[in-house]
Amino acid sequence: AIESLFGASLTGIAYSLFAGQPLTILGSTGPVLVFEKILFKFCRDYDLSYLSLRTSIGLWTAFLCILLVATDASSLVCYITRFTEEAFAALICIIFIYEALEKLFHLGEVYAFNMHNDLNKLTLYSCVCSEPEKPSNETLHVWRSMNTSVEDIPWSNLTVSECLKFHGVFRGPACGHHGPYIPDVLFWSVILFFATFFLSSFLKQFKTKRYFPTKVRSTISDFAVFLTIVIMVLIDYLIGIPSPKLHVPEKFEPTRKDRGWFIDPLGSNPWWTLLVAAIPALLCTILIFMDQQITAVIINRKEHKLKKGCGYHLDLLMVGVMLGICSLMGLPWFVAATVLSISHVNSLKVESQCSAPGEQPKFLGIREQRVTGLMIFVLMGMSVFMTSVLKFIPMPVLYGVFLYMGVSSLKGIQFFDRIKLFGMPAKHQPDLIYLRYVPLWKVHIFTVIQLTCLVLLWVIKVSAAAVVFPMMVLALVFIRKLMDLCFTKRELSWLDDLMPESKKKKEDDKKIKEKEEAERMLSDNESVHLAYGEASLNFPVKTLKYSIDPSVVNISDEMAKTAQWKALSMSTENAKVTRANL
Amino acid sequence: AIESLFGASLTGIAYSLFAGQPLTILGSTGPVLVFEKILFKFCRDYDLSYLSLRTSIGLWTAFLCILLVATDASSLVCYITRFTEEAFAALICIIFIYEALEKLFHLGEVYAFNMHNDLNKLTLYSCVCSEPEKPSNETLHVWRSMNTSVEDIPWSNLTVSECLKFHGVFRGPACGHHGPYIPDVLFWSVILFFATFFLSSFLKQFKTKRYFPTKVRSTISDFAVFLTIVIMVLIDYLIGIPSPKLHVPEKFEPTRKDRGWFIDPLGSNPWWTLLVAAIPALLCTILIFMDQQITAVIINRKEHKLKKGCGYHLDLLMVGVMLGICSLMGLPWFVAATVLSISHVNSLKVESQCSAPGEQPKFLGIREQRVTGLMIFVLMGMSVFMTSVLKFIPMPVLYGVFLYMGVSSLKGIQFFDRIKLFGMPAKHQPDLIYLRYVPLWKVHIFTVIQLTCLVLLWVIKVSAAAVVFPMMVLALVFIRKLMDLCFTKRELSWLDDLMPESKKKKEDDKKIKEKEEAERMLSDNESVHLAYGEASLNFPVKTLKYSIDPSVVNISDEMAKTAQWKALSMSTENAKVTRANL
Repeated sequence: AIESLFGASLTGIAYSLFAGQPLTILGSTGPVLVFEKILFKFCRDYDLSYLSLRTSIGLWTAFLCILLVATDASSLVCYITRFTEEAFAALICIIFIYEALEKLFHLGEVYAFNMHNDLNKLTLYSCVCSEPEKPSNETLHVWRSMNTSVEDIPWSNLTVSECLKFHGVFRGPACGHHGPYIPDVLFWSVILFFATFFLSSFLKQFKTKRYFPTKVRSTISDFAVFLTIVIMVLIDYLIGIPSPKLHVPEKFEPTRKDRGWFIDPLGSNPWWTLLVAAIPALLCTILIFMDQQITAVIINRKEHKLKKGCGYHLDLLMVGVMLGICSLMGLPWFVAATVLSISHVNSLKVESQCSAPGEQPKFLGIREQRVTGLMIFVLMGMSVFMTSVLKFIPMPVLYGVFLYMGVSSLKGIQFFDRIKLFGMPAKHQPDLIYLRYVPLWKVHIFTVIQLTCLVLLWVIKVSAAAVVFPMMVLALVFIRKLMDLCFTKRELSWLDDLMPESKKKKEDDKKIKEKEEAERMLSDNESVHLAYGEASLNFPVKTLKYSIDPSVVNISDEMAKTAQWKALSMSTENAKVTRANL
Repeated sequence: AIESLFGASLTGIAYSLFAGQPLTILGSTGPVLVFEKILFKFCRDYDLSYLSLRTSIGLWTAFLCILLVATDASSLVCYITRFTEEAFAALICIIFIYEALEKLFHLGEVYAFNMHNDLNKLTLYSCVCSEPEKPSNETLHVWRSMNTSVEDIPWSNLTVSECLKFHGVFRGPACGHHGPYIPDVLFWSVILFFATFFLSSFLKQFKTKRYFPTKVRSTISDFAVFLTIVIMVLIDYLIGIPSPKLHVPEKFEPTRKDRGWFIDPLGSNPWWTLLVAAIPALLCTILIFMDQQITAVIINRKEHKLKKGCGYHLDLLMVGVMLGICSLMGLPWFVAATVLSISHVNSLKVESQCSAPGEQPKFLGIREQRVTGLMIFVLMGMSVFMTSVLKFIPMPVLYGVFLYMGVSSLKGIQFFDRIKLFGMPAKHQPDLIYLRYVPLWKVHIFTVIQLTCLVLLWVIKVSAAAVVFPMMVLALVFIRKLMDLCFTKRELSWLDDLMPESKKKKEDDKKIKEKEEAERMLSDNESVHLAYGEASLNFPVKTLKYSIDPSVVNISDEMAKTAQWKALSMSTENAKVTRANL
């Protein structure tokens, strides 16, 4: 807890000051956490010191990262196409959503409820602590070490924690597996969780509603998550159910008493672990490299119109250096966090001021600076001193925010749009650019391959083969290369290009129009000579119908631009000229 | 319970067979229930027999209703304008929503939860029945009548119901005001309530989604509420929390042992109550008349395109006759239920088959017949024999359905659209027909008057003056008449006309277009003579911009129809003719 906040603050401040791309937000991300979990299990199984082994792996990883920088490895980024990027981003979103739900389910275990309560027998229900009938050796040992005789313990007057301390047994119809059934807490948590999710979604959408002036709406929308948390904390406080709260340490110190501020890379482990650590470090480097570079690619997308893009090398160097420092101090490893970085960039968007409700405001650019990033991490560090406020935040509210973040990040991913196509009859499909040029079945195959990769990644992540997880992430790049065999280059350019959908479509529309105009000019010249031709009259009506697609284009804008109008007004003018000449 | 089902079935079958407008669904509606509640309180306060007094009032009401039919009073319906109709419909919707929420709050009292649980002390929590220290006289009387000595009662082993029977006292930290705190039930009910509301709203909206073929979507949408109830019942059954369930009687018999199938209008009451009953009957008649006629007006609206409209007299006669029968048998009074009737008519709508997602399908007509109404009430009667299934339905699910019905009925009411205008900046206002012709401040005044009426009605309903409630409903008609003084006839025709918004707008658009075409013809003739005029060129572009309003009109449809196009093509033709003539 305290290490996490301190580490994040330290790394984040350094990164936001010196990185090439300061819009990236660092955090401990899904894949790296998965790696740490596997390492922890391994250390427990083989009786090694986790923190020391982690430090040596971290130092190796830092070294490898710096090596990658020195060998210009960041240029490999060009192989990370939309395919890899979206599969990875989708994986992270799913991890977000899954963990939020998993944590809620976990609450169901901790706060067990009585599934078959008989309300009439509530007077007979109780769950009292009592002396174990056949105390185990361990229990006897505990009793002996407490210096109290068993007979002196007032069993039936013990609280839950005391009962657990004395290894008592819970007896009664109101007892679950691990203690008394806990009333209300679970269901209240479920209410908090979903209320947070729906409220933040609702407030976020407020921007495009018809009510209130633009300023009020955008303020509500911008602070949607913050407002939601404040509202939910207040409601939770008023209802008074002891829902699980955010646990914040009281004092600024390492969480474990047996460790200082710095960790010895060797510790109690045998000397050869220092060398062997290079192998897991290699896997870890892959993860961190992929995590960092994919996030950087997403942030630096053309559609974000960044003035100061790139900075891949400098960013990886910063991450490498901070990784070494964090490892030595036993702090968590921080890499570019995809979901948070996207949220950060989105919140810095400058959009055209006055927009009609429902209409998409025009995107002008990103407010590029180092202040927001720096402030985020300074505030994160300061939160250590705000324990008196933070301890009122119920955990289910935070899980709800995680769910909201995961779900809302899914929206921008084209991969999910393509998955949705499976359940959509052809006539209801939206006018997506790739559907214009790639046959539907090929789009489906592309999606299925991507989905298979994702499922495989997930299966590996949760199975015993979790160690090869980083390799699989890297494998995504190769699978994408293999797809060159079954898709034409043209198809892939539509399905797997980083250019944003809207821009592509605009260009495509432009091309179509130019072609049509050329055709029209041709037929117009002919029609002048033909005279009385009904066929030539149909033409402008038909093309107008084509270019009108209310769901996609802003008609009144487009209309003024279209060649048809100019041509039509031209011909009217011609008519007048000719009439005047008569 | 049993009387309600039997009565509804009996009245409904008779009505659906013989009424002039069989699409109306009968039910016991808000205002009538309010009247019955007031009567019940009155009888309790003055120690009168409620059922007998109700029977005599019911018989008088039936007589008055038949008198109204004989005197052609249904023709007064012409004074019920949109103003009255919407205020009344809004009142009923609000009663629906309020009662749903109130019942949920009531659950909060019945299923009290411990607001300040200390999870650590759960082992010490219990709520046991015990002997009252100072038994009251009533308690002593109860004990004596039970023929058991107090010492023999095993106090601490009594269940909740036994403890209440023996007038015991609940003692312990897990005790609320009226018994032990009940864990989980309240919060589970809240979850069921809101889940039902949101799930049915979501499933209902499924019709306009892009996924699945039209048939699947419309089936899901049509059975939205039924599907929701089935899903929620299953979930409730699986979780196993003893949430309050629908109570259905086991046997087909009058609910009270001291009454037969028929009620004596006099009973234990003094003889003059038979005559005095005429006064409340007058009030009740107003309510039933208003309820019946307003619903009939709504059902027979022009926009529903009914082939067999009207039937006002026959319907009131049927309601009057059944009122007499129901009163004699002690069954609830049934009048046309506005919300249910609207739902019934909506579900019988025939709409154009293939509709693009998002696009409003065209309304073709209503399937007018007597089968659905008849089946509804036959099934309602049959439900008496389906107790084994019905008893699994949790009450919060039904409350959620009520909330959904109330909220979804609000949508069609123009009054609420006008209330929404208060929070909307002028530039974001939708293109409503009355906003085109009536100044905004006058629209607001109209809304404020209507809102005041509604608030007054509500205040009267809940206050001690509830007796005059029916009079106030009638007063709505007079207030509307008074408004002729401060609004012009033209303004009222826009604000308070029964013609549907869409039809009005179409006609208005048509008028504008005709006017413009006439103007255009004029200017076109001029331009021919003017030649080289830039001004004449601007014209078609300007008018096109006017007629394009993507949020309201289907442009591609409208475009083909507009006079501009015809005129333009005409002028192009002219050009060719002139050129050919050269």
